Amino acid sequence: MGLFTKDIKTLDDLFVHQLQDVYYAENQITKALPTMISKATDPQLKQGFELHLAETKNQIKRLERVFEMHGHKPKGVTCPAIDGIIAEANEVAGDVADKEVLDAALIASAQAVEHYEITRYGTLVAWAKQLGRNDCASVLQETLDEEKATDHKLTAMAESKINRKAA
Amino acid sequence: MGLFTKDIKTLDDLFVHQLQDVYYAENQITKALPTMISKATDPQLKQGFELHLAETKNQIKRLERVFEMHGHKPKGVTCPAIDGIIAEANEVAGDVADKEVLDAALIASAQAVEHYEITRYGTLVAWAKQLGRNDCASVLQETLDEEKATDHKLTAMAESKINRKAA
Repeated sequence: MGLFTKDIKTLDDLFVHQLQDVYYAENQITKALPTMISKATDPQLKQGFELHLAETKNQIKRLERVFEMHGHKPKGVTCPAIDGIIAEANEVAGDVADKEVLDAALIASAQAVEHYEITRYGTLVAWAKQLGRNDCASVLQETLDEEKATDHKLTAMAESKINRKAA
Repeated sequence: MGLFTKDIKTLDDLFVHQLQDVYYAENQITKALPTMISKATDPQLKQGFELHLAETKNQIKRLERVFEMHGHKPKGVTCPAIDGIIAEANEVAGDVADKEVLDAALIASAQAVEHYEITRYGTLVAWAKQLGRNDCASVLQETLDEEKATDHKLTAMAESKINRKAA
């Protein structure tokens, strides 16, 4: 069980709570991605989601490393934000029949997920540095860089191909 | 009532559905910000949230303009993503007693909201361009630029002051 919000008294507690939130989020993403992979039609998009799934599993390992470095057991707390983002992705993906329009919707959903991760890892890196934990910050920064790179790749794919096919 | 996801057949439908999603989201943000303003302690942070509220109201007007340019009445559809992001913000903010730690939590929540808007407006701009609606794209781009600028300002404020005071 994660840290209840009522137990947050210090920036360190807030950092651990945010780690638990992102840990839950990454685990939910690994459950959501296989559906997105199976729904994607464009082979490059499908492959992009497969790569993202592999990266996410590695990001979970990095989070576990940070928990341990910081003297905590890896645990998750329910993250209503990622639950909402994934619910919305499923809602739209479930109802679009045209495969090319669906690909455009899927890529937008994936970017919403990426941006959630970018904002949370950005915050975690800043808090880790403020807490004097540059060791934790540098592990979290690796993931942040990866998320930003993935988001850029998805933008490029959407604009150069997926949106064009959908129009 | 907004466009049901089952009615999405074309990229144009998807664009209108996303406009409705963001319209709902912006309206929820105007309801959430007054609580964040009242909870913030640092005067610069409080002022930053007040500015964000004024900007959000203007962004809603821009969205209404885009709806009209595109021949649709401004309407919202429930957006589980923003509901989740706001629920999480309220959950954390409700339970942190230390005012300086609370400020750090509030700024992180505000950045999660910003990133949701950045991803959605980024997508809307790309889809508008693809649909040959550069007129809509340029109005949406104004908001996208504003959201990115606000996010950068919040990062600077967090790193230069708010996180330091919380530590």
